[in-house]
Amino acid sequence: MPKISEEQKQERIDRVLDGARRCFARFGYEGATVARLEAEIGLSRGAIFNWFPSKEELFVELARRDNDRLLRLFADEGFEALVREITDEDADWLAVYLEFGRRLRSDAEFRERWKERAAPDVRERVQSQLESGQTSGRLRDDVSVTDLGRFLGLVLDGIVVQRGMGFEGPDPDVVVRLVDDAIGAGRRSGDRRQPSASSSA
Amino acid sequence: MPKISEEQKQERIDRVLDGARRCFARFGYEGATVARLEAEIGLSRGAIFNWFPSKEELFVELARRDNDRLLRLFADEGFEALVREITDEDADWLAVYLEFGRRLRSDAEFRERWKERAAPDVRERVQSQLESGQTSGRLRDDVSVTDLGRFLGLVLDGIVVQRGMGFEGPDPDVVVRLVDDAIGAGRRSGDRRQPSASSSA
Repeated sequence: MPKISEEQKQERIDRVLDGARRCFARFGYEGATVARLEAEIGLSRGAIFNWFPSKEELFVELARRDNDRLLRLFADEGFEALVREITDEDADWLAVYLEFGRRLRSDAEFRERWKERAAPDVRERVQSQLESGQTSGRLRDDVSVTDLGRFLGLVLDGIVVQRGMGFEGPDPDVVVRLVDDAIGAGRRSGDRRQPSASSSA
Repeated sequence: MPKISEEQKQERIDRVLDGARRCFARFGYEGATVARLEAEIGLSRGAIFNWFPSKEELFVELARRDNDRLLRLFADEGFEALVREITDEDADWLAVYLEFGRRLRSDAEFRERWKERAAPDVRERVQSQLESGQTSGRLRDDVSVTDLGRFLGLVLDGIVVQRGMGFEGPDPDVVVRLVDDAIGAGRRSGDRRQPSASSSA
């Protein structure tokens, strides 16, 4: 193979990934055969699988990029931006995640890799974002940062599954308001943390 | 066919459904072939499909019964009981819902039937339960009953997808606490509904 620059290499990888994403969204994970991947990407299987050892690794890389992008968005702009992003995401693509669920379920080793798919620096940024929210009194601190993050993940997974199944999904404004009240310290902090404040005053 | 009593008929239908549920949980929706359904149920295909026109109708009836049971639980005992029920549900069975998602997605007519799968009287009980929660001041009333119900559904779908994909799922205690603060009127009602109460006093 002729030598190519790092830039050319990244361009080719992006081309493979963009085409694979379209192909998965269009035909589903199982339906995205090698022939369909070749047609959608416009490269031969040899060129495609030069960069990724398998169809599974192609999907995992796409999921990893999604995850990185969404966590960065959360760290930079907050939960509301994330809800809007997922509400606007192509539902055909979200449906691929549902289909992939069974694959995750049947393979514990793979599931561990999946949990760790976000880059460590991005996960750390999200973690410290939540911690500083607690320190500043913006987020409730009677629940751990881990549990806050899991709850947000739960709500987002709920949106993904509803949209992936073809339903309209919830009104993002309502979701954001209710989640703000679930995780925020806000007006309630006095009541919750000092339940007898008024009687002891 | 010999005449059978209504009781015998219900017993046979329950036997078919119980076996079909085990078979779907074990092999997945696609993997539950007619031969495997026969083996798990212990009846011939003629006897099985005497009661249900297709494998799809078998699954829909199981989902309808789940939905009825869960909505009744919500109406009788509240959201916490529902979270605990889904947290304790067989994850193999929950995974079948994920797999079925693609089927839902590709068929709009079927999706409409799916939305209406709960019995009307059960849906009405849930609706009036939420309405009375607002009237009594237990639930926030700055969000419609429909939106409150949708938010609860979103959280539950999030638990289903996480458990169905093989992850442990969130701590039900944390979910219940956060959701209570999201949907409850509780201590915040004074603040939210009369934002300038303190300044105007």
